[in-house]
Amino acid sequence: MTEFANLGVAVHKRPDGSTPCDLLVVERPVVEPEDNEVLLHINSVGICGSDVSVWRKGRLAHLALEGPLVLGHESSGKVLRCGKNVKHLIPGDRVAIEPGYPLRQDEFAKVGRYNLSDQYFCSIPMSNGCLQRYFTYPADYCYKLPDNVSFEEGALVEPLSVAIHACRRAEVQLGHNVLVCGAGPIGLVSLIVAKAMGAAKVIVTDMLENRLEVAKSLGADFIHKVSKGESPMETARIVENLLGCMPERTIECTGAEAAVQTGIYATRSGGCLMLIGIGPSESINVPIVNAAVREVDIKGCIKYCNTWPTAIQMISSGQVNVKPLVTHRFPLEDAIEAFNANLTGKGIKIMIKCDPTDRGI
Amino acid sequence: MTEFANLGVAVHKRPDGSTPCDLLVVERPVVEPEDNEVLLHINSVGICGSDVSVWRKGRLAHLALEGPLVLGHESSGKVLRCGKNVKHLIPGDRVAIEPGYPLRQDEFAKVGRYNLSDQYFCSIPMSNGCLQRYFTYPADYCYKLPDNVSFEEGALVEPLSVAIHACRRAEVQLGHNVLVCGAGPIGLVSLIVAKAMGAAKVIVTDMLENRLEVAKSLGADFIHKVSKGESPMETARIVENLLGCMPERTIECTGAEAAVQTGIYATRSGGCLMLIGIGPSESINVPIVNAAVREVDIKGCIKYCNTWPTAIQMISSGQVNVKPLVTHRFPLEDAIEAFNANLTGKGIKIMIKCDPTDRGI
Amino acid sequence: MTEFANLGVAVHKRPDGSTPCDLLVVERPVVEPEDNEVLLHINSVGICGSDVSVWRKGRLAHLALEGPLVLGHESSGKVLRCGKNVKHLIPGDRVAIEPGYPLRQDEFAKVGRYNLSDQYFCSIPMSNGCLQRYFTYPADYCYKLPDNVSFEEGALVEPLSVAIHACRRAEVQLGHNVLVCGAGPIGLVSLIVAKAMGAAKVIVTDMLENRLEVAKSLGADFIHKVSKGESPMETARIVENLLGCMPERTIECTGAEAAVQTGIYATRSGGCLMLIGIGPSESINVPIVNAAVREVDIKGCIKYCNTWPTAIQMISSGQVNVKPLVTHRFPLEDAIEAFNANLTGKGIKIMIKCDPTDRGI
Amino acid sequence: MTEFANLGVAVHKRPDGSTPCDLLVVERPVVEPEDNEVLLHINSVGICGSDVSVWRKGRLAHLALEGPLVLGHESSGKVLRCGKNVKHLIPGDRVAIEPGYPLRQDEFAKVGRYNLSDQYFCSIPMSNGCLQRYFTYPADYCYKLPDNVSFEEGALVEPLSVAIHACRRAEVQLGHNVLVCGAGPIGLVSLIVAKAMGAAKVIVTDMLENRLEVAKSLGADFIHKVSKGESPMETARIVENLLGCMPERTIECTGAEAAVQTGIYATRSGGCLMLIGIGPSESINVPIVNAAVREVDIKGCIKYCNTWPTAIQMISSGQVNVKPLVTHRFPLEDAIEAFNANLTGKGIKIMIKCDPTDRGI
Repeated sequence: MTEFANLGVAVHKRPDGSTPCDLLVVERPVVEPEDNEVLLHINSVGICGSDVSVWRKGRLAHLALEGPLVLGHESSGKVLRCGKNVKHLIPGDRVAIEPGYPLRQDEFAKVGRYNLSDQYFCSIPMSNGCLQRYFTYPADYCYKLPDNVSFEEGALVEPLSVAIHACRRAEVQLGHNVLVCGAGPIGLVSLIVAKAMGAAKVIVTDMLENRLEVAKSLGADFIHKVSKGESPMETARIVENLLGCMPERTIECTGAEAAVQTGIYATRSGGCLMLIGIGPSESINVPIVNAAVREVDIKGCIKYCNTWPTAIQMISSGQVNVKPLVTHRFPLEDAIEAFNANLTGKGIKIMIKCDPTDRGI
Repeated sequence: MTEFANLGVAVHKRPDGSTPCDLLVVERPVVEPEDNEVLLHINSVGICGSDVSVWRKGRLAHLALEGPLVLGHESSGKVLRCGKNVKHLIPGDRVAIEPGYPLRQDEFAKVGRYNLSDQYFCSIPMSNGCLQRYFTYPADYCYKLPDNVSFEEGALVEPLSVAIHACRRAEVQLGHNVLVCGAGPIGLVSLIVAKAMGAAKVIVTDMLENRLEVAKSLGADFIHKVSKGESPMETARIVENLLGCMPERTIECTGAEAAVQTGIYATRSGGCLMLIGIGPSESINVPIVNAAVREVDIKGCIKYCNTWPTAIQMISSGQVNVKPLVTHRFPLEDAIEAFNANLTGKGIKIMIKCDPTDRGI
Repeated sequence: MTEFANLGVAVHKRPDGSTPCDLLVVERPVVEPEDNEVLLHINSVGICGSDVSVWRKGRLAHLALEGPLVLGHESSGKVLRCGKNVKHLIPGDRVAIEPGYPLRQDEFAKVGRYNLSDQYFCSIPMSNGCLQRYFTYPADYCYKLPDNVSFEEGALVEPLSVAIHACRRAEVQLGHNVLVCGAGPIGLVSLIVAKAMGAAKVIVTDMLENRLEVAKSLGADFIHKVSKGESPMETARIVENLLGCMPERTIECTGAEAAVQTGIYATRSGGCLMLIGIGPSESINVPIVNAAVREVDIKGCIKYCNTWPTAIQMISSGQVNVKPLVTHRFPLEDAIEAFNANLTGKGIKIMIKCDPTDRGI
Repeated sequence: MTEFANLGVAVHKRPDGSTPCDLLVVERPVVEPEDNEVLLHINSVGICGSDVSVWRKGRLAHLALEGPLVLGHESSGKVLRCGKNVKHLIPGDRVAIEPGYPLRQDEFAKVGRYNLSDQYFCSIPMSNGCLQRYFTYPADYCYKLPDNVSFEEGALVEPLSVAIHACRRAEVQLGHNVLVCGAGPIGLVSLIVAKAMGAAKVIVTDMLENRLEVAKSLGADFIHKVSKGESPMETARIVENLLGCMPERTIECTGAEAAVQTGIYATRSGGCLMLIGIGPSESINVPIVNAAVREVDIKGCIKYCNTWPTAIQMISSGQVNVKPLVTHRFPLEDAIEAFNANLTGKGIKIMIKCDPTDRGI
């Protein structure tokens, strides 16, 4: 299938094992779609902190880079060809891509929790991602975009999905008050999603003033800058005072031990503390008696499942506006520059544009 | 307790049993609050279609008027005195009143479904309502209003509660498409609440153009005027075409047999048809096989439970704006005129103002 | 793949379209397993009423026989060969076969409700079933049997699954009282499963004394023979009197209009009526107001999902004893005789033994 | 009300504050029932470990004894007199007593989680318990016993309720494999209840051989004696090997840090670890990342709600047999001797018989 010249962005281990790894724009083969697959012309790919971690450290949490790996898992594109069993898509359809799928219909996939299955997931250790011009993928995990949803919004479905999965598992409900710990990208989408699910008031905490300002601009009802010496119990009390009550739900997005402890003390009896953030240490000190006797459930989450249709509906119907999250754009050929820009911490979300004929929004 | 002169609006059976019953403004005793009660100065009371039914027909569904009965169950007021066990309220607090409570902690009340309990409910057959100047009531069913929620908004918590209870039981979720059958007051609050719970798109059907226009102005994404000859299957197909998919939830607010049938045909497999509307006949013809083999659950609802705190949070946080629903106001002394105005079908919600010192919003 | 001589039992339409159709033992090709498939040596296949309906009437409910069709969907067998991606099974494993699977990972399959998906299902209109000696099938829908579960118990997982799916959707809980309408095979497994889920007392109704006796012997706490003239309200009252309370759940297994009505009147407020039985008419008269205002949910079910592992655990752990359900056995070569025996209505479950080297239990 | 001479067992603080406190059989006033109350002739009261803790240490967890306190919260008795509003009981009825009730209908009580409410609870700090001859209590929290449930079984509803509440919150389901950590009284009732809810296999761990033997005799499918040096990960692996799979649910009844850690490592992805046991330290080290990324929910529980009707149904229907749990009986007059017998650790449950005319079962 030589009519396409494919280009991709891959991380390579250095011969001496030193880090950062080598980040290269490389030629990639184009793979003919099998019966249930589609060949996609990728349009937009967002850079995620985890892509950067793979590049800089050669690892992500406990997973280590095994071979050369194409990055990218926040993406959208256009269908070029369909395998013969594909019925719900046709060439020309614009789609958002869910970057993980279960390798088989195991016990988790069958009950609808395929995020717990053994997955192909576009990241380390060894599943190539979407940051390339042409990408072949199972059609059932490509979701058609309505006309009023752009490719970039399609790529943003991925970070939105993290928050949807978390807020669903936390059972955020109409009228709830919600504490979001952390005003980074995941904290921000958690804020947005909690509001869309009917949360009455959301308070966001962080240690950085400027991140809290962004949260405020995106709809946070209250913000609180946590100071260094502040104890978790103190933070919890401040949250209660600001909200006027204890929050029914806490979405923890930092992974910091103190924030997890705050989450327990702050959450109303009978409520739920949802852990999205993953910190550096496997084990932390948890005030478990306080949580247990007040029936504050402690839940975590991994990736997402069944979120793409929901997120697309939310964007299409205008319930949420994620466009302001994209602050920078780079063509695929300048991907290395894009990753370097990300390192400087500027902006919120950087998009890499893979279609030479479409570098716009 | 003679320092207050109480005035109330009561329905009396006529000696000859003819209807409409007599609607009278009468002198009422003021009842000293017991240990768990508060004495309230009622401020605003909305007129409900069921109040009108009691007056005009002497009955509501299968319940018949038994004796003289004070009307009114959509109300708010100010706390004047507290029984000695009351801890969460003090004189001067502004409250919204939940007009029903379980007579004892029976099996339903204990599991949190006290709407199914044997209740005191401010309506027929014989529980006097709130449409009076002074009203004594259990404090636990009086909910403090935040400063930014008006008395009238407090009174509107009641109709809002019907929709909250229904949409909760229907499990309306983020990204759902929802069909609301009927654009009367209950259809309108169902539309508002479904949106607040995260519904992506809501389509409202009715047979009257002008009601559909109100639905449109309150946020309906689509409207459909059902015509006389239209079969339920046809309506279902039109709904699917307009939405672009079958709705995951249908909220039926008319009680019409055809609308219930439409609700079954229209709802997506695995979804839910929620029946709020109650029609004239006990039994109707239901395409039960279609519902059963597609696992479309058919649920009903009666009144509400655990909705007041949620509704107050929604109003206070600005999630919903119910103020436009109030279109007319009358002082308590002119209550008969208010009920007559309601008969003409003008406006959406008429408020009766019971506090002579506060006739405003 | 000529080393196996395959034999199967198929229904053929008659040239003149008359019924019953022709039931024939025929030679069948053996299909080499694809990457995700296994080739099975079928051992035991139970005859289901729906197989008989296809034979006698050429149809099942609204589905019509299209071409020659191999029957059988209650089955178990031994793995002969595995496709190259199959990891959880090896040749020699004994398995129970789930006879339906989703054709793609559509919206229903992804959320764990693959019974609502477009399915391959071993029955009409045109998916060949398991009643043959060799059968090739997706490995993910073949479930390994523990050593202490026999092939016949493996085949009985299918009818057990109908009841598990229904009782799960009905949310039968510890301490519930349950009404089961109908003492046929599905009523009997519903009784067994409701008990296993913690139901305190189960009452079974039927119009036939001898079926009720079987229910009694399988653990029914109460039985009631419904007589011809009995109204649904009367039956409901008798059920309440026998149980000492209204049942929280009703499992309707007859499809009769009167039984559905009984189910509504009989079920306690806040409870659930589960419809398994499908009657001859699409629409029936339903006392919908009674159900709605008492919040009795009306649910149906279609086939099953995620039940095989559960049913195998139940049998293996000794929670349920399904062995008494098998009352007759025939070798595959005598399948026509087996179907004729079924027609006489004798016994509960007839097993067809497809492995010539194992005709026992 | 002088016709009854009341006798009760109370703990008194010593003048010098030393422990154990003084345990005395004292004369108690008899309190006339208010409108919603009943006066009971107590029959059987089980001694609980928490009663012993109050006596020996003058405290229970963080709660300190405030004044003289009548012990006892596992009890049953006969109704002597009813307040005028009591409709569901009449004198002569035999009842089991739920020893806690919400002081008002607060937000938790209204949603059916009254165990989280501010409660009257028959224990420290200062709510007198049932270990007396005559006891006055709210009628709604007294549950009529069927004829086939004895007073002692009625008293055992309390410990059974702890396990019902925990297993419900853990959502133990049909076919689940369950790990119970700890074979003390709460571990044993958890085993019984998990089985009654449909658990296929239950494995019980403890450090004491003889307690494991009791678990075995009560139906544990597997037992494992945890040895001193064993790490939580090792215990988890042993559990998996014995069960043949990881358990979907773990019920932790010891409060030991190592057992909580074991519970996380042992529980299957997507499962739940339920904490009933409360250890000595407020905070413990928790492998939170392991739990979070595998979506193993960590929940706790406090007391119970809505369990009495369920437990009585279970006993009455013969689903569970709790009679073997009672190993010793003492008349009320010999209560001190009963408590001393408890100290020796002999037997499982000691019953104190408060009705001089009925000292039997």
